[in-house]
Amino acid sequence: MKPDQITHVESVRLSDDGRAVRILDQSRLPNETVYLELSEPEALYEAIHSLRVRGAPAIGIFAGYAMYVLALRSQATNLPDFVEECRGYRDYLNASRPTAVNLRHMLDRMLAAAESLPCMDVDSVKDVMRQAALAIHREDIAMCRAISRYGLSLVKDGDGILTHCNAGPLATSRYGTALGPLFLAKEEGITLHAWCDETRPLLQGARLTAYELQQAGIDCTLICDNMASIVMKEGKINACFVGCDRVARNGDTANKIGTSGVAILARHYGIPFYVLGPSSSIDFSCPDGDHIPIELRDGEEIKSKFFLQPSSLPEVRCYNPAFDVTDHDLITAIVTERGICYPPFSESLAALFGRKSSD
Amino acid sequence: MKPDQITHVESVRLSDDGRAVRILDQSRLPNETVYLELSEPEALYEAIHSLRVRGAPAIGIFAGYAMYVLALRSQATNLPDFVEECRGYRDYLNASRPTAVNLRHMLDRMLAAAESLPCMDVDSVKDVMRQAALAIHREDIAMCRAISRYGLSLVKDGDGILTHCNAGPLATSRYGTALGPLFLAKEEGITLHAWCDETRPLLQGARLTAYELQQAGIDCTLICDNMASIVMKEGKINACFVGCDRVARNGDTANKIGTSGVAILARHYGIPFYVLGPSSSIDFSCPDGDHIPIELRDGEEIKSKFFLQPSSLPEVRCYNPAFDVTDHDLITAIVTERGICYPPFSESLAALFGRKSSD
Repeated sequence: MKPDQITHVESVRLSDDGRAVRILDQSRLPNETVYLELSEPEALYEAIHSLRVRGAPAIGIFAGYAMYVLALRSQATNLPDFVEECRGYRDYLNASRPTAVNLRHMLDRMLAAAESLPCMDVDSVKDVMRQAALAIHREDIAMCRAISRYGLSLVKDGDGILTHCNAGPLATSRYGTALGPLFLAKEEGITLHAWCDETRPLLQGARLTAYELQQAGIDCTLICDNMASIVMKEGKINACFVGCDRVARNGDTANKIGTSGVAILARHYGIPFYVLGPSSSIDFSCPDGDHIPIELRDGEEIKSKFFLQPSSLPEVRCYNPAFDVTDHDLITAIVTERGICYPPFSESLAALFGRKSSD
Repeated sequence: MKPDQITHVESVRLSDDGRAVRILDQSRLPNETVYLELSEPEALYEAIHSLRVRGAPAIGIFAGYAMYVLALRSQATNLPDFVEECRGYRDYLNASRPTAVNLRHMLDRMLAAAESLPCMDVDSVKDVMRQAALAIHREDIAMCRAISRYGLSLVKDGDGILTHCNAGPLATSRYGTALGPLFLAKEEGITLHAWCDETRPLLQGARLTAYELQQAGIDCTLICDNMASIVMKEGKINACFVGCDRVARNGDTANKIGTSGVAILARHYGIPFYVLGPSSSIDFSCPDGDHIPIELRDGEEIKSKFFLQPSSLPEVRCYNPAFDVTDHDLITAIVTERGICYPPFSESLAALFGRKSSD
């Protein structure tokens, strides 16, 4: 193996028999490497809800294969019944993570594939859906490579990069989005130093990001979330790279809880703060961050998950929002596979998509 | 028990037989309530180093009793030998936590007590040291009450207070410093809502602060450190109360890792940020935060402590500073038992102590 060659993990794909979705169970990393093959509706729903598959793009790829796998199970003999069944699966899976706009996008795209050829028989439509799911996956690989290329242009050899949560190959395909520039840099012999927020309460930074970077031989250091301030102050960080779950049309960005705090620290210390993600994360129907619903999760995740003993008394109340919204004012640039958008985002995002900014 | 009556935990005292230091082992809270009686030098050192006793004032009280208990063990028959032995204990215990200025203060004070009466016999000097240790404890109770009173004057009924780490009764005596206003408010029928950062990696906020507040019937909500930004944005926080390990004469403040991040968020959201602590934490020999050494702790604390399984791979490197320095520019006021200091701190702190600001 050449020094800069990287083994890319495959987080989601169709199973070898083509009847199930095969995933690497991210909830058990880094201590256990377990692959699951899922084809039951409840198991597919649970995989998203319990974060066995996570990261907007990986969820999108998963959604494509999941819709196809569920469509395969259909006993419907006429297309209207079949489409109605697919619509039910779309609605069901869509409820598994309310903040994930890419999930909805890809479910809708699969439903559109089912509806696209009203004169065909059900089996042919199932094959169309298979092609659609494979296309979603292929496009994601190309998309990640493009984001990585644009992101890499924003930093230089020797830079320290702060990351939050996980938006690497596990969350996507091949390169990842926010982590993509680090993997691409490695392939091209450019040295970047990653600083990974562990990302409480679910520790995606420790379990997944540090795992992926370490496996690929990329220099990385793990810190607790509350250490971001001191490493910035000490001059270790030249740029922040984070992913996004949903971007409003004014640039306000929902991402993993704690992202907005990183952005505020970066602003304080004069460090550029970049959001990297697929253009499918941009929701032009959403005017600003106030319109992004924030998922509240069980407080036991904070007190009990991962711990030998609960960290606090049973009667202590917790508040556990899974995401926060980073104000567009705090974002230096938004990097998509179509290019790099600078403020004012309401104009630059619209321009990227050939829309009027008042759309 | 009256609704607003509070049972105060006793974190440090002399054992009933007067020959050991009795502590509530804070490293095992909240799941186990274990009291330890310590009299061996190594055990006393370890109790500070392993955070069984923690919080600058509690460490100071502990230092007083520890010096006395070690002095009791001395076989010296003449005072110079005895003082020399005490000096050795002072140096030994002082090395257990390099950032804790209050530890050094109180060890020095106990050594001064040993040296204060050169004409007396060793047994009498041991009794003088006992009185000195008890005085340190008594003064701490009075000091906490005064800080709590000043702190309470800065907030109003119904306010939400964000806290970081632990500076309550466990870290001090009776009221605590940063948490003191919450306990005093409870006694006086004033409702304050506490929001406790869990405070990674050692979870003092979850294990200790939430425990103390819950036990006292004070409304509290536990959050992960990276949720401070969203709760501030949502308008839940009216003030931040944090403790301090060392304050430089320009107001720069070393406190638990993550404190500087909270201060930067508070500034961003326009929320007042208060440092509460004993005046013994103010180090006039220290010009600014750049002169405060930051203790680096073992990275395994981040990856392994408290967890069922390590959060990351064994080969992943960690960076684990135990403290950070909050810039004086970010601090609204510093509250001590002598009064409230506002910026410019180089003048107000000096005035509080009757010094010239150029001292």
